[in-house]
Amino acid sequence: MKTYNIAIVGLGNIGSYLFNFLTKNKNYLCNKNNSNFNISYVSARSFKKKRSINFKKKIWIKNCLKLVKKKDVDIIIELVGGSEGVAKKLVFSALKNKKHVVTANKALISKYGDELSKIAEKNRVNLEYEAAVCGGVPIIRSIKEGLIANKINRLHGIFNGTSNYILSSMDKDKTTFKETLNKSINLGYAESNPKSDINGDDVASKVQILSCLSFSSFINTNIHVEGIKNIDSKDIFNADKLGYKIKLLGFSEIQNNKIYQRVHPTLVKKTSYIASVDGVLNAVIIDGKPIGKNVIQGEGAGPSATTSALVSDISSILRGNIKYPFAIASSKRKKYLSGKISELFFSSYIRLNVKDKYGVLSDITKIFSEYKVSIKRVIQNPDKIKKNSSIVIITHKSKDEYIQKTLKTLSKKLYVIEKPKLLRIENS
Amino acid sequence: MKTYNIAIVGLGNIGSYLFNFLTKNKNYLCNKNNSNFNISYVSARSFKKKRSINFKKKIWIKNCLKLVKKKDVDIIIELVGGSEGVAKKLVFSALKNKKHVVTANKALISKYGDELSKIAEKNRVNLEYEAAVCGGVPIIRSIKEGLIANKINRLHGIFNGTSNYILSSMDKDKTTFKETLNKSINLGYAESNPKSDINGDDVASKVQILSCLSFSSFINTNIHVEGIKNIDSKDIFNADKLGYKIKLLGFSEIQNNKIYQRVHPTLVKKTSYIASVDGVLNAVIIDGKPIGKNVIQGEGAGPSATTSALVSDISSILRGNIKYPFAIASSKRKKYLSGKISELFFSSYIRLNVKDKYGVLSDITKIFSEYKVSIKRVIQNPDKIKKNSSIVIITHKSKDEYIQKTLKTLSKKLYVIEKPKLLRIENS
Repeated sequence: MKTYNIAIVGLGNIGSYLFNFLTKNKNYLCNKNNSNFNISYVSARSFKKKRSINFKKKIWIKNCLKLVKKKDVDIIIELVGGSEGVAKKLVFSALKNKKHVVTANKALISKYGDELSKIAEKNRVNLEYEAAVCGGVPIIRSIKEGLIANKINRLHGIFNGTSNYILSSMDKDKTTFKETLNKSINLGYAESNPKSDINGDDVASKVQILSCLSFSSFINTNIHVEGIKNIDSKDIFNADKLGYKIKLLGFSEIQNNKIYQRVHPTLVKKTSYIASVDGVLNAVIIDGKPIGKNVIQGEGAGPSATTSALVSDISSILRGNIKYPFAIASSKRKKYLSGKISELFFSSYIRLNVKDKYGVLSDITKIFSEYKVSIKRVIQNPDKIKKNSSIVIITHKSKDEYIQKTLKTLSKKLYVIEKPKLLRIENS
Repeated sequence: MKTYNIAIVGLGNIGSYLFNFLTKNKNYLCNKNNSNFNISYVSARSFKKKRSINFKKKIWIKNCLKLVKKKDVDIIIELVGGSEGVAKKLVFSALKNKKHVVTANKALISKYGDELSKIAEKNRVNLEYEAAVCGGVPIIRSIKEGLIANKINRLHGIFNGTSNYILSSMDKDKTTFKETLNKSINLGYAESNPKSDINGDDVASKVQILSCLSFSSFINTNIHVEGIKNIDSKDIFNADKLGYKIKLLGFSEIQNNKIYQRVHPTLVKKTSYIASVDGVLNAVIIDGKPIGKNVIQGEGAGPSATTSALVSDISSILRGNIKYPFAIASSKRKKYLSGKISELFFSSYIRLNVKDKYGVLSDITKIFSEYKVSIKRVIQNPDKIKKNSSIVIITHKSKDEYIQKTLKTLSKKLYVIEKPKLLRIENS
């Protein structure tokens, strides 16, 4: 039985959980993988920080970059995070020095994955990143192996537990975005700096990584990104009345040989599967041939779910299972042209706040018709005290470009009090 | 690049679809797996049967058992079916002759899997059977690899598309079991002989296979099996009124070091995830540590979904990925004692058809209380014309043994017109 030496870099919540898990379940994992392992080194920014782990002082190494030259290191587990700095240096230099790398770093992979993959392939070592996308949901491995037969043409899903928790709570507790965000931070469901969770960037990284795997393509950074910070409780209320929920979804699809990537809050039918995925859960829906539709759902974050993913990556290496990091050789990966969201067709939800006076609705509908955006439903609620009126319009499927032009024209009208709100509807 | 020679045995819908798929997608698959393959032989019962495939006459072999000695065969794909006869002979003798085997045969694996696995391990060849459980849903691979870190303590789900389609249709169209079954056969959603689909045996085979993988155990044939043929439209109607749907579920769990396996129609809350899985879909829910709950859902049957699974198995072999068929060496697999369903605790739905006369309800509730089965809800609907009454009782969680004793006692009472109906409720 071969023995692999593992170095863990980064000993925060996840690194500590992983250390304890590997220590406690060593026999079980060695049996399952028919090979042996040791944790030969650990490293983190501060030695003195209080942690829930016990390790022998001799396995501590202060400068993690030295690990890449050590003979008693086969696998480096990078849990530092961030697309630059130490994480970047460590992963590049580990692969160059023929060390296997396991990482949970979605920012790094979605930025430098193409370069890193080429080095890993050249040096015949693994670059594994199951933990970078949707925590414990085994989506990377499923696309690479379980669904290998399939030509995937579309994927979408809920890729961020924090924003899903916030939207679910706003819906359930009838609270505003700000109130809910603060509550989420207090409860530990959002980080103290939740910027990349709520502005959609975290989802964007994951969508870009899954696109590569699904379409055998290089990383494509063209992606339309809207987060959830402009979601108003009024919109959640209106959506509910109309039979919808609002979810922050990521999408990637191939149409006419172009790749379309987008992240935005989306109205989904209450009876749809995706509407039932509440709280911190993540879910991925894959459409491909011959498989049809496949759904994978689970815990998207947290030390236990992330450890499940990290251990699947480590196990893959322990079984001597060297594979292309992006499922196919870099020389065979494709470059797709990027499509724009404005070229796509959506049924849309538009909310206008207008002065409540004669002729306004007729003028609005005229503008829609000038841009050939056909209206399916209008709900007008006058607010007699403020002397204004909220108008909600659901459109038939229309080219996004025309809807955006309609809104631009409308927003210049004097009777329009605030910037019109646009939310796209997912009908599939 | 190594070249693998593949023989396909069985050229029905699935075998033919697979043949065409491998032929059309050869380049794509060779690239992804970094190795080459040929279909060197095909075999089936009749050469003359009309099929949607074109193969050169020279690759036809009449006696498939001869394949196991052929030098130009590395992988045998068994699509004959059935746990005995040709399928059994072929798979045993292939593994003995150091050929890799891919099979979609759940009956064979759930009966002879332990023996077959030992031969495969000894001869260091693959025995792959992703297609035997839930068609295109990559559940075998996910348990073996993506979720490898996890100690699974429970799995349950919808494992049979035909029975799920029948129950969904009975609910939607308000039709009887018989009407719906006939319609399903006409539409091709049920086979002309759907016995093993509707009596629960098909689900039982799948549960037994998944138990082995989840609990690192040997095959355990102790399993409580009830099918759907006694489901009455009245029960679907009552369940609906009470906020439930009826699903045929398979369960396997470890409690106090015993394994409990069961298949039975189950009441599930309408708002639960599993209730939303309608039609021919399959879904598996895994509970484990550290992962928590993981859900995988997809097409459970049909040539395209099955081909997706078969190709993932073939690809695993093409990548030189030899693994234990049941995720761990046979010498390390465990034998669990079997628990009985009567030891478990359920909230239950009981429907009684009784003579509508004075004192009956009081007598019934007295019997429940004598067996310490506590009643949560009673609904009595008298049928004035027939002079009888339908009584539906929902119990609090009670030991199944006591519920069964209660029903046995009740069924001897003269006022009970037909055998009491018991359906268990899933609350988790």
